[in-house]
Amino acid sequence: MTDIPKYKLVSRQWKNKKTIIDVKGCKIGGDDLFLIAGPCAVESEEQIETIASYTSKLGIKFIRGGAFKPRTSPYSFQGLKETGLSLLKQVSNTYDLGIITEVMDLSLLDTVYPYTDIIQIGSRNMKNYHFLKEIGKTDKPIMLKRGMDATMEEWLLAAEYILLGGNENVILCERGIRTFDTSNRNTLDIAGIALAKQLSHLPVISDPSQATGNRDLIKPASLASIAAGADGLMIEVHNDPKKALSDGPQSLYLEQLGDMMPDFAKVAKAVGKTCSWSHKHEIVNV
Amino acid sequence: MTDIPKYKLVSRQWKNKKTIIDVKGCKIGGDDLFLIAGPCAVESEEQIETIASYTSKLGIKFIRGGAFKPRTSPYSFQGLKETGLSLLKQVSNTYDLGIITEVMDLSLLDTVYPYTDIIQIGSRNMKNYHFLKEIGKTDKPIMLKRGMDATMEEWLLAAEYILLGGNENVILCERGIRTFDTSNRNTLDIAGIALAKQLSHLPVISDPSQATGNRDLIKPASLASIAAGADGLMIEVHNDPKKALSDGPQSLYLEQLGDMMPDFAKVAKAVGKTCSWSHKHEIVNV
Amino acid sequence: MTDIPKYKLVSRQWKNKKTIIDVKGCKIGGDDLFLIAGPCAVESEEQIETIASYTSKLGIKFIRGGAFKPRTSPYSFQGLKETGLSLLKQVSNTYDLGIITEVMDLSLLDTVYPYTDIIQIGSRNMKNYHFLKEIGKTDKPIMLKRGMDATMEEWLLAAEYILLGGNENVILCERGIRTFDTSNRNTLDIAGIALAKQLSHLPVISDPSQATGNRDLIKPASLASIAAGADGLMIEVHNDPKKALSDGPQSLYLEQLGDMMPDFAKVAKAVGKTCSWSHKHEIVNV
Amino acid sequence: MTDIPKYKLVSRQWKNKKTIIDVKGCKIGGDDLFLIAGPCAVESEEQIETIASYTSKLGIKFIRGGAFKPRTSPYSFQGLKETGLSLLKQVSNTYDLGIITEVMDLSLLDTVYPYTDIIQIGSRNMKNYHFLKEIGKTDKPIMLKRGMDATMEEWLLAAEYILLGGNENVILCERGIRTFDTSNRNTLDIAGIALAKQLSHLPVISDPSQATGNRDLIKPASLASIAAGADGLMIEVHNDPKKALSDGPQSLYLEQLGDMMPDFAKVAKAVGKTCSWSHKHEIVNV
Repeated sequence: MTDIPKYKLVSRQWKNKKTIIDVKGCKIGGDDLFLIAGPCAVESEEQIETIASYTSKLGIKFIRGGAFKPRTSPYSFQGLKETGLSLLKQVSNTYDLGIITEVMDLSLLDTVYPYTDIIQIGSRNMKNYHFLKEIGKTDKPIMLKRGMDATMEEWLLAAEYILLGGNENVILCERGIRTFDTSNRNTLDIAGIALAKQLSHLPVISDPSQATGNRDLIKPASLASIAAGADGLMIEVHNDPKKALSDGPQSLYLEQLGDMMPDFAKVAKAVGKTCSWSHKHEIVNV
Repeated sequence: MTDIPKYKLVSRQWKNKKTIIDVKGCKIGGDDLFLIAGPCAVESEEQIETIASYTSKLGIKFIRGGAFKPRTSPYSFQGLKETGLSLLKQVSNTYDLGIITEVMDLSLLDTVYPYTDIIQIGSRNMKNYHFLKEIGKTDKPIMLKRGMDATMEEWLLAAEYILLGGNENVILCERGIRTFDTSNRNTLDIAGIALAKQLSHLPVISDPSQATGNRDLIKPASLASIAAGADGLMIEVHNDPKKALSDGPQSLYLEQLGDMMPDFAKVAKAVGKTCSWSHKHEIVNV
Repeated sequence: MTDIPKYKLVSRQWKNKKTIIDVKGCKIGGDDLFLIAGPCAVESEEQIETIASYTSKLGIKFIRGGAFKPRTSPYSFQGLKETGLSLLKQVSNTYDLGIITEVMDLSLLDTVYPYTDIIQIGSRNMKNYHFLKEIGKTDKPIMLKRGMDATMEEWLLAAEYILLGGNENVILCERGIRTFDTSNRNTLDIAGIALAKQLSHLPVISDPSQATGNRDLIKPASLASIAAGADGLMIEVHNDPKKALSDGPQSLYLEQLGDMMPDFAKVAKAVGKTCSWSHKHEIVNV
Repeated sequence: MTDIPKYKLVSRQWKNKKTIIDVKGCKIGGDDLFLIAGPCAVESEEQIETIASYTSKLGIKFIRGGAFKPRTSPYSFQGLKETGLSLLKQVSNTYDLGIITEVMDLSLLDTVYPYTDIIQIGSRNMKNYHFLKEIGKTDKPIMLKRGMDATMEEWLLAAEYILLGGNENVILCERGIRTFDTSNRNTLDIAGIALAKQLSHLPVISDPSQATGNRDLIKPASLASIAAGADGLMIEVHNDPKKALSDGPQSLYLEQLGDMMPDFAKVAKAVGKTCSWSHKHEIVNV
């Protein structure tokens, strides 16, 4: 074989100290459990406003929301595009929230860049190596979702492409892999979260929504992720999941999210993490 | 289709109350976290005695150990057979431990039956339907491991075969499914643990050893299983893992197991479980 | 690792000459393409008689048919048992057909043995190692189906168990593996057929019915199997597929089978195989 | 669900006539078996010249060769880029060959466009929907490789994106899917080739090199693909596979390709296809 498919910059051997990414006052990869919540896609001003108002009261500092939506079918909702970005910015200003949203293609980087605090690379782009090289030249933190068919080594090598571009602020996000069992949308690779943390110094967060595709499983999948050592969670939530234009079945109702946050805090503390937001959540659902 | 592949007796619709299995003083499926520890295979009197002495001090009430070992290669160690069973019985008597061991084939049922408290059905036998029907006629609790290629529905239908035989004391055991990613031996289906508990009234336990194949991942996989709602854990441990005749790389050192038990208790308590053994573990590694 | 999971007796290194199994006048693994046809399950005298009458006219020398049926659901048809075996024997006598049927469990071996010419081991039993050891002591040819989750090495090691028992007349049968794509029931591992023949001296046949689960794909999957070097085909056919008690969607109509046999012969000849039955098939559908 | 993930333009229901793509004198999707051969990557003038000289003598009308190479590791050879494209053009002129090469990213489209006759979309880009939309606006034929984790429906929906862009000249290319079995690099979905042809009017070709990753399996995988109804083959061949900078183990030696072409023709004829190149291959290896 002429290939040498081994990562270097992302490894613990290269840097034996956890990478902590400081963005909008959050220290991702540090002691505090990092939380992102928001809808799959930005759909309207009312929607994103209602959601952001609620999640910010919970103490969640980052909002997610797709503006350019990659969809399996061309006939599905494709996102509000620039309008969606503006709406994210609006709630970000109102509630002092960090934004994470996806750059689907290099040609969209300039459009998305001014709006977002963390650039999301979707699982479908994880093996788009030209894209990874170029995105590595940017100066904003990048969240790299694991491809649904990516081995651990391929995932870490994808991050290596970004670090080689010069950007060391990469957050790994496990979001489930594709397996034969379709009782869940994907199979959350919980041991993979722990393994990624052992092999790499980069922060690792979990996306229980994409992994399970089922709102009834978000809570146990979230608690398990925290217990396995995840540095954070990215959770889909919607003000009206039944009418969601995408991923409704895996979107939490707002109150469900509020209800489960005390449990997040309990498990986080059991494994030695802090929850700077935990003083907030008790008052929300009153 | 002429098939009607839907389970009934195992479902929450049929029995909307958790099944709690009372065996050797443990109430599996109840509030207390159930623990099993022991070697992959019984190898010698010294081995099983050393292990049992240690795990019993930790407060672990059940010992595992294969006597008839199903192995991928006919040239691998195949177990001590009846001698292995006798050794299990010996330590069971000495330390008042419950025994769980596998019945590999109906023809071995009469041999194994007198020795074991819980009959283990291995993942390779999960779709052996004639076997399931017959084993369902026995009166001892049965632990049904999930096949590495079994969907959730197939797993629950396998349990249905046993319940139809008349034996309602079935414990489901998630032990990882086979996926494309070989960085772990199998992929622990953590959301599947939660889903099985939602769909069925049967207890569900987790086998982090078989799932990960890697002793460095046993702790996070165990904590995640507890957080996801597992009723118990079955963990492989060995007095000398480097010389183990099978599954050495996934066997914990004795001290490792002792060290992680306080963390099991912390996470268990965080999700509302009790740990009757937790008063014991503090003194062991002193 | 203490394991040495490498096969020996089944390998080309051990025996550098193709194993040819002579049974009921067929030389399986030789130059002639070996064909088996019949229903998934024996359902009635009329059913098996109609099918056998037709397939024997096509020159097909072996009939398949399940008597004890392993089914995912306990509520599905479980086979006619001894009655099914008797019906197979009856058509075998009438039309001079060889029989292949499954032994689901060791406890059924004595029941099935007198009726069958080739003992089928189902994919669900491929990793039932105690069973493999015992079945290897019999003196009839054995067809070993690949487990749907079995790697090439695991499949060959399963055959090794049988050869170690003393029975060298093993036929390997590729029947599709389980993958994420459910557009087919399983994924026929066509390159695996070729690889098995390169690694082993044993005959390898293909089961396009179980692999695809879709009668519209039986013909291309069969032609591909022949082209890849399969020594034979086992095909499900039914006199009334819409009313079949099992596997109807993947059962050919009788006439479909007759229609495709000239194409089997053309491709077989293109890759250097003979078809002793090919003089027969032209007259059947007239 | 708000999604409607069903394809339309690519379906047989929409257009009940096979799409035949006429490019450089080849009619892809017609009666003649279409062949592409060439190295994984263009490495040097001598390499591509030697290969093109040989394959053109075999009557193969199209050459493949990567100039921009997507590689799992950033430390692997990444292609000669524009130089590679120029070298392809040079041999194309000398030997009157059509060119197929990959566009890895939209930003590279303008660079690659003037050189290539067919635009290849790699499997890693199959779910890059923004890219698919934009590439659909081009006027050259497009070969869309199936993603290694793509279901049949997802593959056809990806093609639908391109057709919606206005480009109807799409060739589907099956190149193996990722499964648990790593004895082959990927698992060639042979029944998927037949299924794609039944569901869609688009041409479907097979890439046995990428599918198997093993030069010893290229011949049976190719013959099987032809027998299953593939409209063509794309095969990796190298003048010195042991020194290849990428994919050496799956690259045929030149003579191996020449030797197997008469067999391609025999199987093609057996399933009713013509081989306009077949008068050429006999004289090459003399």
